[in-house]
Formats: sequence, C-alpha cells, structure tokens
Amino acid sequence: MRTITWDAERAVVQLIDQSQLPAEYRIVECAHVDELIAAIQQLQVRGAPALGAAGAFGVVLACLHARTDVEYEHQLEMLRTARPTAVNLSYGVARATRAAQRGTTMEEKVSFALEEAKRLADEDVAANKQLGVHGSTLLEDGDVVLTHCNAGRLACVDWGTALGVIRAAVEQGKRIEVIASETRPLNQGSRLTAWELLEDNIPVTLITDSMSAVMMRSGRVTKVLVGVDRVVKEGVFNKIGTYMHAVVAKAHGVPFYVAAPLSSFDLERSSTEVEIEERPCEELIYCGSKQLAPLKVTVYNPAFDFTPFELISALITERGVFRPQDVAALRTGNR
Amino acid sequence: MRTITWDAERAVVQLIDQSQLPAEYRIVECAHVDELIAAIQQLQVRGAPALGAAGAFGVVLACLHARTDVEYEHQLEMLRTARPTAVNLSYGVARATRAAQRGTTMEEKVSFALEEAKRLADEDVAANKQLGVHGSTLLEDGDVVLTHCNAGRLACVDWGTALGVIRAAVEQGKRIEVIASETRPLNQGSRLTAWELLEDNIPVTLITDSMSAVMMRSGRVTKVLVGVDRVVKEGVFNKIGTYMHAVVAKAHGVPFYVAAPLSSFDLERSSTEVEIEERPCEELIYCGSKQLAPLKVTVYNPAFDFTPFELISALITERGVFRPQDVAALRTGNR
Repeated sequence: MRTITWDAERAVVQLIDQSQLPAEYRIVECAHVDELIAAIQQLQVRGAPALGAAGAFGVVLACLHARTDVEYEHQLEMLRTARPTAVNLSYGVARATRAAQRGTTMEEKVSFALEEAKRLADEDVAANKQLGVHGSTLLEDGDVVLTHCNAGRLACVDWGTALGVIRAAVEQGKRIEVIASETRPLNQGSRLTAWELLEDNIPVTLITDSMSAVMMRSGRVTKVLVGVDRVVKEGVFNKIGTYMHAVVAKAHGVPFYVAAPLSSFDLERSSTEVEIEERPCEELIYCGSKQLAPLKVTVYNPAFDFTPFELISALITERGVFRPQDVAALRTGNR
Repeated sequence: MRTITWDAERAVVQLIDQSQLPAEYRIVECAHVDELIAAIQQLQVRGAPALGAAGAFGVVLACLHARTDVEYEHQLEMLRTARPTAVNLSYGVARATRAAQRGTTMEEKVSFALEEAKRLADEDVAANKQLGVHGSTLLEDGDVVLTHCNAGRLACVDWGTALGVIRAAVEQGKRIEVIASETRPLNQGSRLTAWELLEDNIPVTLITDSMSAVMMRSGRVTKVLVGVDRVVKEGVFNKIGTYMHAVVAKAHGVPFYVAAPLSSFDLERSSTEVEIEERPCEELIYCGSKQLAPLKVTVYNPAFDFTPFELISALITERGVFRPQDVAALRTGNR
C-alpha cells in the first residue's frame, strides 16, 4: 500500500506505522486531526513528502469534524505546526485549505479538500518517478551509494526521492549497492531504508553513522545521495548527520547529491529563518526499554541540520538535475 | 574501586562490569582465564589500558590453573588474542609472562606474575596522572571539549587518559564542559563517559556521533580529545568514529588531541599491519531487546578506525605533549 491513503468508507487517514518497522508492519488509522498530529509527532508518519500528504488529508478531517470556524482554524494551525522543519507539512495544509475554501457547505469543503489531497498525493508519486529518472543519469553501473535516514517510499506517498533515484537506476539494469547509515537516534536508516531495500532485493549494507568517513577513504563509497526536508536560499535542511556526511564527502572528493522534489523548496527563506526541531532527550537516553545513558545527563537532540550549497554537487528535482548555484533560478510555482 | 583488581583471598580478578552501566553497577569475578577472556570479548572490561592490566592479571590465573605447559601456553595465546586491535592486551600478557618465567615453582610463578600485574596497574594510574597534568596545559578555562567513546577511569585502571586530562584541568580550577558523543554501536559515550563525568560533577552534554560537525561549525566545540588503542608509525587506532571526528575537526579548524599513554605505543608497526576487529552484526541489528534492523541485512561493524597524524594536533603522553612528527623520536622503553 501507499505510505498514506484515505479510506473513504470509514473516513479515516490510513498510515503505515513507521515507528514499529521492521519488527512489526501495522496500519494506523486517524479519524480526527488530533490523532493525526500525534501520529506525526511520534513519527508514525515521517519524511517531508509524506508529511505534505498528511497535512492535506488532515484538512479533510478538520472539515469533517470541526464544529466551529474557530475550532477549524485552531486544528489547521496545530496541524501545520506539528513539526517545524520540513516545509511540506505547511504546504500540504495550505493547498487543501485553499481547495476547501471553494466550498460553501461542509460536504463541498470536505469533497474539495479530499480531491486536492488526493491530487497532491498522486503528484508526489509522479514527481518522485520523474525525479528518479533524472537522478539515475548520475549513477553508474557498479556505484556504491551512501544514503542517510530514509528518503524512500515510506518517506513519501510512494517510490521515494533518494531511493527512487536508486530504484530507477536499478530498473535500467545498473548494479547499485547501497550503504545505509543507521541514522541516530531513531534509526530510520536501519529500520526503514534497510527494510525497503531488502524488500526490493537491492543490496544494502548497514553501518553506524560514524563509519561513513572511513568507507569514503577506502574508496568503498562512490557517491552520497540523501533526501531533503527544506531547500532554502543557500542550502538544505535534512536529517541530523547530513552535514557531517557532506563535510567528509567533500574531504574525500566523493560527490554529494540531494534528491529534492520541488514541494520541499522554500527559496524565499534563508537558513536562519528556519526552526530546527529539538526532540526529547529520551531518544538518546533509551533505546526501546534499554537504558543507554544516566537519567540526569543533559542531551542535545536536534532532529535536523543545515548543509550549505558549497558542499552539494547537485540537486535532483522532477524538472532535472541542477547545480546549486542554478537553483535560485528555479520557479517552483507551487506556492 | 579500581576498574580491575586482584582479590587475594579468593584468587579472582574483579572487574566493574562495563556492559551493564549505567543501568546497573555490578562487579564480575573471573577465577579462570576462559572467564576473563569471555569478559574481555563481551566488553565487560574494555579500554586499552584496562585491557593491559586484564592481560597481566590473566597470566596469574593461567599460572594458578594451567595443568601442563601446553595448556599454559594455549591459555596465554587465547588471552593475548582475545581482542586484536589494542596493543595493551598483548603488552600486559607479555610483561606478566616474563615475570613468571623468573619463578621455578608454581607458587613463585604466581607470585612474580601477580607482583608484575600489580606494578603494571599502579604504573597505569601514575602514568595517567602525569599524562593528565601535561594535557591540562592544552585546555583553557571555558573550553568545551568533545570526546568520543570512553577514555576515562573505566577504560584504564583508574583516573583515565582523555578524561584524566579533563579531570586535571578541572582540579586546577578551569571550567571545562564536555560533549560526549554516544559512540555507536555500543554507546560507551552515553553509558560510560556520561556516567563517569556526572559522578565527578563535570558538566557533560550527550549527542549522537553525527552531531559533532554541526557543533563545530557553530563554534560550540572548542577542542576534541580522545583516547587511543594503538599508536603506530603514521597514526593512531581508536574507536570507530574517531577518524570522522578528526576529519570534521580539521575542516572546522578545531584542535584534535589524542591522549596516548606510552603503553599504547607500537611504533615499529605501520597501520597496514594492525588488524581491525570486526564485531557481530547483532550490535547494529538489536539494541537490548529492541530490533533496529531487518534480521537479514548485511552489516559492516569494524570496532576501530585509523586516524593519520596529519589530522592530529598533538599527542599527550606521560612524558609530555608531542607534535605527531616528533613522536617517532620517542623511545618508549616498554617493550
């Protein structure tokens, strides 16, 4: 199934629960906006493109259940700000909200918002497919590609951005091997990227985040390819650790590519205007039920970091591959 | 108590079990060499200097219990090679073995080996104290020092190498804050370094390994200070991730110091001659009882990496602080 879908019969948003993979594959259903916000904050649904769809479907839930205009506005605001860093969430909310405004009755609003949410989801899949084809031109037969976090189908509605590029290259008959860095503290690399690639029979080797530098020095990693949460004027925000991989890639002369669907572009903003989400200290103090650190320790736990364009070899979009210095010329037309 | 000691009454080696901290503080007792080898391989005792003492005390156990010369030699060989990367283990075994050779009866062999093991342990503490004093000259009031893995008293017999430097600076009244990187996959940074520093009331902030680069870019980290498992001709072996921190430190102009007691020097060897231990894939697939990755995934899990002298600002020894290019001139006289 898609990562996120609408069940018309029961009027619920259905999600693949990404917090339980790979130990358990289960579907979560959200009937109300607050349930969806909880799912977003607990990372049952995560990944910038998937959050865009979640935002849009969330507007449908708000149209269905908000009893007053004030409650409706409040729910949209809570949804839009459920996580601050990926631009897609507020983008998805905005698109479905604008669509709903065209309706005069509750039924019309629901119908228009739902239509728009489905359109956004379909567009996401189509954009990923195109992005994959463009990006695949950068990969050669025999490449060993390091990826961080999960920019696969789970992070999107389907197919994936960074992993979509790899899937496209594999479809073309290129032999590609993936190195997945585990992505602390929530191990999206171990839990989600490794799981997705094994499902597709694409060879994958799991490493700790701290091993990328030695693998680059030994020549084992030939390219780095990651997704993105927000592209701003002078660089990209992505999962914490991305900047580290970019610095060591530069030091070893390894190309560093960012798979960036236009829905994640926010070129009017500079990096200082974007809030980096800080997540609970428990994420580093515990892993499951195992205590990893003293309970009283101070923890710094930003979920994202910023990588400047200087460290990026190219950005891969659904409109083609761009050098960072040419990105400013892109008109996304999405907002 | 010391990390490793000899209980004369019961003729056992006593260890602080480092695999259970910080959730549980407990003492492990090893009455036979095979129990000590298991404790070493399960990292109940770890850290290059502590392994040196473990090797020496292990010889005492072999003298006590081996029934034939062949069994004695076999036990020493198994002990010496229980873990391959830190030079201290084989160094400790060699020192106590040489001492035992001076005895003619079993009682004499035990007595000479034990005397030597205790001397080695005492020397380790004394060397760490001196090393700490020398290293403290590199730290200024207000420094924020990133350290990786655990090079504290738990890694040694007492006091610590990298953390010994920090302790010495703090004793001199300097305000030092420590950033501990968690050190995947076994989290010695979270479990041991954070625990030790909190016990001493030294301010410590825990981060994932992948955050060091952003913290250096923001100016939050002023120095990096790590321990070492083996110093060779052209660089150092230390916990996996050390090389990554060194590369990003260089890229951000942050000094990178290695606390290196002479017992870890092996200057006759070059890096290609040293075996890097690869540990079980389960270390990345599970964390406690929590499954973090698909069971079938391929895992690369080297426990150490190599950092060349070019990336190292200085080595701190018990004989003073040395620039890497001057290290070759050091005669350790230990072997």
